[in-house]
Amino acid sequence: MSQNTYTVHRNRHHHGWNNAFAPVLRVAPGDVVTIETIDSSGGQLTKHATLEDLKTLDFDKVNPVTGPIFIDDARPGDALKITIEQFDPSGWGWTANIPGFGLLAEDFPDPALHIWHYDTSWRTPAAFGHMAKIPLKPFAGTIGVAPAASGHHSVVPPRRCGGNMDIRDLSAGTELYLPIEVYGALFSVGDTHAAQGDGEVCGTAIESAMTVTLRFDLIKGTDLKFPRATLPGPITRHNDSAGYEVTTGIGTDLMQGARDAVRGMIDLLAMRYGFSPMDAYMLCSIAADLKISELVDRPNWVVSLYLPRLVLE
Amino acid sequence: MSQNTYTVHRNRHHHGWNNAFAPVLRVAPGDVVTIETIDSSGGQLTKHATLEDLKTLDFDKVNPVTGPIFIDDARPGDALKITIEQFDPSGWGWTANIPGFGLLAEDFPDPALHIWHYDTSWRTPAAFGHMAKIPLKPFAGTIGVAPAASGHHSVVPPRRCGGNMDIRDLSAGTELYLPIEVYGALFSVGDTHAAQGDGEVCGTAIESAMTVTLRFDLIKGTDLKFPRATLPGPITRHNDSAGYEVTTGIGTDLMQGARDAVRGMIDLLAMRYGFSPMDAYMLCSIAADLKISELVDRPNWVVSLYLPRLVLE
Repeated sequence: MSQNTYTVHRNRHHHGWNNAFAPVLRVAPGDVVTIETIDSSGGQLTKHATLEDLKTLDFDKVNPVTGPIFIDDARPGDALKITIEQFDPSGWGWTANIPGFGLLAEDFPDPALHIWHYDTSWRTPAAFGHMAKIPLKPFAGTIGVAPAASGHHSVVPPRRCGGNMDIRDLSAGTELYLPIEVYGALFSVGDTHAAQGDGEVCGTAIESAMTVTLRFDLIKGTDLKFPRATLPGPITRHNDSAGYEVTTGIGTDLMQGARDAVRGMIDLLAMRYGFSPMDAYMLCSIAADLKISELVDRPNWVVSLYLPRLVLE
Repeated sequence: MSQNTYTVHRNRHHHGWNNAFAPVLRVAPGDVVTIETIDSSGGQLTKHATLEDLKTLDFDKVNPVTGPIFIDDARPGDALKITIEQFDPSGWGWTANIPGFGLLAEDFPDPALHIWHYDTSWRTPAAFGHMAKIPLKPFAGTIGVAPAASGHHSVVPPRRCGGNMDIRDLSAGTELYLPIEVYGALFSVGDTHAAQGDGEVCGTAIESAMTVTLRFDLIKGTDLKFPRATLPGPITRHNDSAGYEVTTGIGTDLMQGARDAVRGMIDLLAMRYGFSPMDAYMLCSIAADLKISELVDRPNWVVSLYLPRLVLE
C-alpha cells in the first residue's frame, strides 16, 4: 500500500460537529496527516491573556477542531484506526476556572487563569508557580468522527463516535479505534492538552495548541460500540515514582463521590502545602486521577482521587 | 513511646458493624498488631469448593472482619492512622460471580467459581487457567472503624469511617487515615484480596485469607471527612510494562458508562482472545481498572476500563 503524507493548516477548522461540513482533505487508508490545531479558546486567549479576556470569552468560538478529513472507503459500521504518532508543541498554554463549568462549579464561582510556558522537548516538568511541577504528557482532548445524526451538534459533549473525550492517555504511540457513523468518517481533531489528570475536574487542562501527526487505517465491518484504544506501554511512569496522596468520596452516587474526593484533596493541599483552594482545584485538574475503587458494595460506592506526590517535590 | 506487639486470632471476628461489640484487644498509639483474617466467604468456600457450595452460601456469614480493636485515647473527631506493614499469605483464594451481585448482574445471572493457588512469596503471577497471569498485590478490602450510629450495620457498604472500600492500592507501605466516630475507634479488618482491579466489577477479587500486620497511631482533632491515604511509591509497575487495552462508555450516567466500558472489554476479550464472557468478566474484576476520564463535558461523561496487556502475555 502506498502511503501519502499531508498537512492540514489550522485555519481549516470548524466549530461543533455536522456531517454536512465539506471535507478539507481526502486521504486513503495508510496515509499520514500532520494537523495543526488551535487551543480550546479558539485563539481568544494568548500568552498575554488576563482575567478580563476570560470574562469576555465568546463561547461560540470555543473548542475548534481541525478537519474534517474524508477517509476513502470508510463506511458506517467500520472502525477508524488512528495511530497517534507525534505531538509538536507550541510551548505555552493556559488553565482556567471558567464560571459555571467544572465539577465544583458551585464552590468556585470566580474566574481564574494560569498561563504556562513549557519545555518544547516535553522533557522538563512545567512549573505551576512555585507550588508544583507538572510532568508533560501531550494528547488531543477532542478527537472524533462526525455523528450520523444530521444537523449541528455542540462540540462540548463526547459521543460514541468520539469527540471531546479528554482521555489523558491518548498520547504518542496510541492506537485509537472510533466507530464510524458516516461515509468517509469525517475525522477532526483539536483541544490539545500538554497535561491532564483523569477527570479534568476543573474543566480545563494545560490547554495548548500543537501540531499532531496521525496515521489513518480502516477496520472493516466491526461492531464497535464505543471508542477503544491500545496503549503501547506504561502510562504513569513519568509521574509515579514518589507515590500518591489519595482522597476518597463514599456514598450512593459516583458524581457526588467524585466531588467529595476532590474537595478532600483541596483541603489537604490547602492545609499541608498552603495552596489556595483555586490553585489546588486547578492542580487536581491537570495532575490528579479520578478512579472508581468499587461500585459493587451496595448501596455505597468509592471514588478515589490520586495525586502524584512527585508534582509537590 | 514504647511499642507493644500483639496478635489477634481469626476466631476473634464479627459480622457487620456495631459500636456495642466488645473489643477483643486494647492497644496504645504506636502499637503493632498482627491480625489473622478469614476470607470473605467466612470460611464457607474451601480450596475444594464447587459451584454447589456457592449456591448454598449463607449470606449472614459473609465478609467477617477481625476485631474490634480499642485504641487508647481515640476520640470522635480524631483520625486513626494505620500503617499497613505486611501481608502474609494463605496461598490460595477464590473468585466468584454471585448471582444478583456485581456491576453486570443482569448480564451474568449464573454462578461461577474459580479457585486460585498462588505463590506465597507474592512474586510469581497467579495463573488464571491458561488464559491469563495475574501479578499479585495484596490488600485488605475491608478496613474500618465502628460508625457512630447505634445498632447493627451491614458490612457490605463502605461508609465515611471506612469498611468495605475495596481500594486496591492499600497495600504494604500505605498510610491510611480513617475518621474516628466512637471512643476507642473500634478498628476491624478482613476481606483480604491477593489482587483486584479498580472497581471490582464482578463483585469479587482474588478472595484470600491472610495475616495482616498494622501499626496504629492517632492524629488528634482533624476534621477528616472521608478516608485518605498516602501511597509510598508507584502503584502499577507490577503490571504496566506492556501497556493497556482500553474500552470506554460514554453517556450521561457514570454507572452506565462503567457498564458499557466493561461490556466493551468483555467483547474484546471474547473476540480476540477466545475468553468466555464469564471468564472475561472475572478477569476485569481482578485485573482491570475503572477510571473517570472526564466528568465535565456536559452532558456526557467518559468512563474508561484499562486492562494491563501483561496479564494476557
